[in-house]
Amino acid sequence: MEHAKLYHIGCAQCVITEKELASLMDSDHLDVINLSEERSRVEEAIMHGVKSVPALITPNGLVLHLNAGMQTDDLAGVAL
Amino acid sequence: MEHAKLYHIGCAQCVITEKELASLMDSDHLDVINLSEERSRVEEAIMHGVKSVPALITPNGLVLHLNAGMQTDDLAGVAL
Repeated sequence: MEHAKLYHIGCAQCVITEKELASLMDSDHLDVINLSEERSRVEEAIMHGVKSVPALITPNGLVLHLNAGMQTDDLAGVAL
Repeated sequence: MEHAKLYHIGCAQCVITEKELASLMDSDHLDVINLSEERSRVEEAIMHGVKSVPALITPNGLVLHLNAGMQTDDLAGVAL
């Protein structure tokens, strides 16, 4: 199985999303890239089509922007 | 492992998302609910916090709105 990539920036919502997705997938096949730690990879993320984070890129290249446009009241329901 | 739920409405983007997520997860633990076929479950989705579809709800109740606010130029890059 090819790897999926999760790009995020280490925000609370990002970390929760990483944890939840890792629990659903085979974590050996989930590459997590924290762009606030690996700033040199921001361009790579953009090249893949990432426009907001967190974003999951499937092995087939589908970019899933997770909670893009999230409202603050969405955050209220999340245990940050 | 508890189940994750994917709510969608059968749109092309929804179906691709379903296929891609199913390839990443143990599909025995992914419940897919097509609200255009099961309209009676719309209220259930809203109750879970779903505000747009497709949306993935993790076993811990985190609602991930997938590509909420997606722009038409995002669709252009997807093989529909």
